[in-house]
Amino acid sequence: MDFSLSPELQALQEKTRRFIAEVVIPYEDDPRQTPHGPAEALRDELVAHARAAGLLTPHGPRELGGLGLSHRAKAVVFEEAGYSPLGPVAMNIHAPDEGNIHLLDAIATPAQRERWLRPLVEGHARSCFAMTEPAPGAGSDPTMLTTTATRDGDDYVIHGTKWFITGAVGARVAIIMAKLEDGAATMFLSDMDAPGIRVERTMDALDACFTGGHSVLRLEGLRVPAENVLGALGEGFRYAQVRLAPARLTHCMRWLGAARRAHDTALAYAARRRAFGKRLGEHEGVGFMLADNAMDLHAARLSTWHTAWVLDQGQRGKHESSMSKVAVSEAVWRVVDRSVQILGGQGVTGETIVMRIFKDIRAFRIYDGPSEVHRWSVARRLLRRAAPPEEGAS
Amino acid sequence: MDFSLSPELQALQEKTRRFIAEVVIPYEDDPRQTPHGPAEALRDELVAHARAAGLLTPHGPRELGGLGLSHRAKAVVFEEAGYSPLGPVAMNIHAPDEGNIHLLDAIATPAQRERWLRPLVEGHARSCFAMTEPAPGAGSDPTMLTTTATRDGDDYVIHGTKWFITGAVGARVAIIMAKLEDGAATMFLSDMDAPGIRVERTMDALDACFTGGHSVLRLEGLRVPAENVLGALGEGFRYAQVRLAPARLTHCMRWLGAARRAHDTALAYAARRRAFGKRLGEHEGVGFMLADNAMDLHAARLSTWHTAWVLDQGQRGKHESSMSKVAVSEAVWRVVDRSVQILGGQGVTGETIVMRIFKDIRAFRIYDGPSEVHRWSVARRLLRRAAPPEEGAS
Amino acid sequence: MDFSLSPELQALQEKTRRFIAEVVIPYEDDPRQTPHGPAEALRDELVAHARAAGLLTPHGPRELGGLGLSHRAKAVVFEEAGYSPLGPVAMNIHAPDEGNIHLLDAIATPAQRERWLRPLVEGHARSCFAMTEPAPGAGSDPTMLTTTATRDGDDYVIHGTKWFITGAVGARVAIIMAKLEDGAATMFLSDMDAPGIRVERTMDALDACFTGGHSVLRLEGLRVPAENVLGALGEGFRYAQVRLAPARLTHCMRWLGAARRAHDTALAYAARRRAFGKRLGEHEGVGFMLADNAMDLHAARLSTWHTAWVLDQGQRGKHESSMSKVAVSEAVWRVVDRSVQILGGQGVTGETIVMRIFKDIRAFRIYDGPSEVHRWSVARRLLRRAAPPEEGAS
Amino acid sequence: MDFSLSPELQALQEKTRRFIAEVVIPYEDDPRQTPHGPAEALRDELVAHARAAGLLTPHGPRELGGLGLSHRAKAVVFEEAGYSPLGPVAMNIHAPDEGNIHLLDAIATPAQRERWLRPLVEGHARSCFAMTEPAPGAGSDPTMLTTTATRDGDDYVIHGTKWFITGAVGARVAIIMAKLEDGAATMFLSDMDAPGIRVERTMDALDACFTGGHSVLRLEGLRVPAENVLGALGEGFRYAQVRLAPARLTHCMRWLGAARRAHDTALAYAARRRAFGKRLGEHEGVGFMLADNAMDLHAARLSTWHTAWVLDQGQRGKHESSMSKVAVSEAVWRVVDRSVQILGGQGVTGETIVMRIFKDIRAFRIYDGPSEVHRWSVARRLLRRAAPPEEGAS
Repeated sequence: MDFSLSPELQALQEKTRRFIAEVVIPYEDDPRQTPHGPAEALRDELVAHARAAGLLTPHGPRELGGLGLSHRAKAVVFEEAGYSPLGPVAMNIHAPDEGNIHLLDAIATPAQRERWLRPLVEGHARSCFAMTEPAPGAGSDPTMLTTTATRDGDDYVIHGTKWFITGAVGARVAIIMAKLEDGAATMFLSDMDAPGIRVERTMDALDACFTGGHSVLRLEGLRVPAENVLGALGEGFRYAQVRLAPARLTHCMRWLGAARRAHDTALAYAARRRAFGKRLGEHEGVGFMLADNAMDLHAARLSTWHTAWVLDQGQRGKHESSMSKVAVSEAVWRVVDRSVQILGGQGVTGETIVMRIFKDIRAFRIYDGPSEVHRWSVARRLLRRAAPPEEGAS
Repeated sequence: MDFSLSPELQALQEKTRRFIAEVVIPYEDDPRQTPHGPAEALRDELVAHARAAGLLTPHGPRELGGLGLSHRAKAVVFEEAGYSPLGPVAMNIHAPDEGNIHLLDAIATPAQRERWLRPLVEGHARSCFAMTEPAPGAGSDPTMLTTTATRDGDDYVIHGTKWFITGAVGARVAIIMAKLEDGAATMFLSDMDAPGIRVERTMDALDACFTGGHSVLRLEGLRVPAENVLGALGEGFRYAQVRLAPARLTHCMRWLGAARRAHDTALAYAARRRAFGKRLGEHEGVGFMLADNAMDLHAARLSTWHTAWVLDQGQRGKHESSMSKVAVSEAVWRVVDRSVQILGGQGVTGETIVMRIFKDIRAFRIYDGPSEVHRWSVARRLLRRAAPPEEGAS
Repeated sequence: MDFSLSPELQALQEKTRRFIAEVVIPYEDDPRQTPHGPAEALRDELVAHARAAGLLTPHGPRELGGLGLSHRAKAVVFEEAGYSPLGPVAMNIHAPDEGNIHLLDAIATPAQRERWLRPLVEGHARSCFAMTEPAPGAGSDPTMLTTTATRDGDDYVIHGTKWFITGAVGARVAIIMAKLEDGAATMFLSDMDAPGIRVERTMDALDACFTGGHSVLRLEGLRVPAENVLGALGEGFRYAQVRLAPARLTHCMRWLGAARRAHDTALAYAARRRAFGKRLGEHEGVGFMLADNAMDLHAARLSTWHTAWVLDQGQRGKHESSMSKVAVSEAVWRVVDRSVQILGGQGVTGETIVMRIFKDIRAFRIYDGPSEVHRWSVARRLLRRAAPPEEGAS
Repeated sequence: MDFSLSPELQALQEKTRRFIAEVVIPYEDDPRQTPHGPAEALRDELVAHARAAGLLTPHGPRELGGLGLSHRAKAVVFEEAGYSPLGPVAMNIHAPDEGNIHLLDAIATPAQRERWLRPLVEGHARSCFAMTEPAPGAGSDPTMLTTTATRDGDDYVIHGTKWFITGAVGARVAIIMAKLEDGAATMFLSDMDAPGIRVERTMDALDACFTGGHSVLRLEGLRVPAENVLGALGEGFRYAQVRLAPARLTHCMRWLGAARRAHDTALAYAARRRAFGKRLGEHEGVGFMLADNAMDLHAARLSTWHTAWVLDQGQRGKHESSMSKVAVSEAVWRVVDRSVQILGGQGVTGETIVMRIFKDIRAFRIYDGPSEVHRWSVARRLLRRAAPPEEGAS
């Protein structure tokens, strides 16, 4: 049991922290930011900075130019990156690319790696992950998948509608989940400019931190050659789990950084602004909120680190990653909400970065499995360990 | 003890409900809505509808064309109006006009009534209330007022900076709080197009429901003739309380309607959308959130009604309105946050009205006294009743 | 809409308040109190005081000597009674007698009234309500009833085990729920000293406020003549609801009084005890807890009053009484827990009455339907109103 | 960063777990348990078992027979011990002896070690820590100390009243905090049977897990020879911190075990008991509580481990131990409260161990610094780091 960081990791942490403070944060007022995320030109400029700093795609495989970080190292570095809404964009570690890179690294063929994964790791292209569907399709229950892939010669022909597809606009690559004629879910790789893929519309969203925003995609007779099947046929849901457990943990890492930023902003204000005869933070009501923030941030970090350690042991960590997802997403939400409250008018306006974090972070309690789904899966696992259903039925 | 509504009030409730449903809600997608609130043209069009329906400025004094509603009647009617973000705009009962009308009705001279109040009640003009200042000025602690009013002949000359001034852009009238040379806070009336008032900038804000948004105002040598002093010299803070206790209660009323809308939207979705083999709402985790919503809405309504009754008895109701402000602002926030959670992706995007309510309602826990200030004033009152400070000091 | 109390009710409130303060509270240190509730002799002495004061069984029917209070009047009077743990005992309005009197008043035959109800109203006898069973029998799900009643000539013969039977030791009367051979639940009246009823043991319990404590009852061939069937055969569950909706509301009333006592005790302490340079209550952290107490008590009272009003309109009020049960039981719990925290060491020891209230009140979140069951029934009702299951199934 | 336990520590964990399960838990129904804790005879019997098992005083110094465990090892072992209310008694690691042993080990002279510390480590004697006083003395604010120590020849003569003194009845040794004539707080060692120490009364308490209960002590002319001053004169408050930071962490460890026991009990019940057509735990409302329990236990453990690691680095860990105290005491409380709720009637009666844990654990949010005091000290530290008071004053 040891909570220390290796000197190498500390150095990388410090380097990332400086990069965010000195290079990225100055871009936060850049006008090339839109309600649907940073413009591609801004994204490219930031990525170039990270590349120059040696901080691009640090989770990517080494042979493609990444730093091959362990889950624990990611926990430390991604938290630093998340300190600015533009940090994960700059370092190419934001959803959905971060998870897609992880997935492709795990299951793509050598040829697929070269064609699809390399440009992602190098930051020269972006990707999207097309799984979620409008009602009555696959939402928090992925088994309700309605998009179909029908074999036709050497190709599969895909029909369906996807929505909440993050980063689709501007992406070069899509990973698409569809079910075969026998109902088995399967993943397919496709260029986004292929005929048969159409961005129907970009959705208005509370967050504005993902390049490309969130879109509705129509898949209308999209042809995918069999060589672009990702992994094995019928293994789509299993791969989704391969992608999701670590992917939701990297959300924990990044959003922890964002929450720390909100807290630091509120703390600086509370240490300076006076009201009713003393500094804001010297009012116990405010001081208690700051203390609760500190405790929530600490707990969120420990939970994330622990799950990262579990994953680094080679375990799948489904239980731990579910618990971290719930605990961290709710803790960081409380932190940001309290920070808004402490800042008062400056928390609900563009006077500070905190309003932006507040809007960006809310959906984290929903995506990658809402709190309710994870609580339920944690509960089922507890019950299963306590007593098999058969016994209980007696 | 009687919780029934009179037949007249029921009829007015029903009429308002129909007006909102049939006339106002169809405007919710109107493109004349901006991040800084509905455009003036849209506002005027909605006001004209309310005027035609006999529902304009229902809290205004009868002799100026209002309906002269009691606080209890307002509780019922304003909740209905709040069911759409555009309802209070249409009926001319939104902040800050609602409170300004109340204040002018209470303390304006007959000549001031005619010149400043009449056009507000008739919906032909809008107003703003210029009290809050940037650090180190008056924020949640109004006694830190820095704006000055200096007597110069028959005029007062005002200098200062105000911010978070809602509705300033497009307003005809400003009520300005400034301190005299002896430090006594005083209210002044001014045309907004007077020389010496300048809108420095409009602030980016989380909410987008107030016509004119929120602005920073520079008062640079603004001349106000002595006849435009509102009420007595040096009574500014007392009048602010005259305005605030009922004003914060009308916020409770309107936002209760908004929260009910969010809940109804989430409930309709939970009753229809299926996941994991049944309707969303049939999952206890979701059902419990719906039940908590129902309980929070109920408690918020009862608290608001009770304080309205206290005010109708002619009491100042400071204790009760503080308790309602905290209890209602936090209850409606929980309701809207849960509604977002139930709706999932549709709660954090423009797919439903709920994202908009979520953004609009957050600041209610801050303005008109943040929860912390009200908790503190409730506590001090409890302590004072329990034991005078002198005793405790022994 | 009117929150005022009639002069008569105010007078009764004041009278009750004085009775509790002057007559009942002095008994709180009486040594005739045991972990299983006040001894019968103490109970009798207290009842005699209430009888003398004209405050005995105020909810009982007038023709049997009660005051025939409306639900709203009960809300006011029972809150006062609950201010002392011994108040409801003295005034004969505690569970289970309070509910049993209500039930018998509603459905007993004239002969049954005379024999069973009269002595209860007069305070000369106590009763118990034998419904709950150990696993796998009827707990929070009453339909799992396992106790059987078999017709045998003019009698029914009852077998089964009941537990958590409050007040059984010392009771003269039992109301027993059992199922007939066709499975239909039915209620039976029995003398407690009848052969075939045996108190197996008294259970150790967290609370100590109910005369007779809580027991396990064995029903072993208990013979009940047909004339002692209470109401119609097979209507047992319906009658349980007749009893429960108002009974759980009277719990709300009494426990509200208890929570007010805890709060008053904590407030008095916080107004007097000094730490870190000022009175405890002047520390915002403590002041906020006091303010939250005030808001919770207020909300609990309004919810209780509202449901009482609904019941007084002749409605069954299932929805409202479920909501009040959850909201009030959780609010008063928070109040008492905060009061303990404010009192520190004096909250977790017999130095104040608050430790006792803390122990007595916890089970209220469980009995008469735990929060979870009520939340679920509120949710189902909401869903049913929003959309019939059939529609949702499409 | 590594969350694994060494093989030795795993073995000790497993050994402790078995000892508790096989030896200690069977004593939980032993009749020699009183409202003021286990009787001395029972305590001695349990201690003999631990001695035989090699598990007695595992935190004690090796040269006196302890195992000299690190803070991290204690975190693991004490959690196991806490799984039974009698575990810490058996292993001689309960408050106040655990902390007193730690304190004496840190600052006693060699002669004092031999005389006072050795019998404590060997389990042949018990001790108490006499610091807290009734109003207006030292409560959560230790600086309000009123007990005096006056030099008289080679002795100090002590006068004062102490209360909430845990374990005083039956203790051989007292550590007494008093202030010298110059006001400097100092610690003194005394035999409990010295003339001048009188147990005025034993207090009724919510908890019943500490041998000897909690008492009021009168110190009336108690003579303490100068050689029995503990450490340096005037360093009393500093030593209290030496004692408290680790002592409150060991509370976290033990109560974490107790909360795990409550959770396991509730889980077993929820996995077996059926209601409304399925196992209790299969109801999402119950399942969510189980999941929240699992997350709270996990977070509490990680927080405790982390602070233990900080202490093992030789740091004082005031910030971390304050955060752990608040976070763990509140988390375990939620766990136990939820477990009560899941168990329903069996949670509020002696049918399960959980009622006992519920009563025992409540005061943990109060002693060793209530949550409010720790939140405040965390806040002050945050503010100090963010900006020195001087800057804020500008």
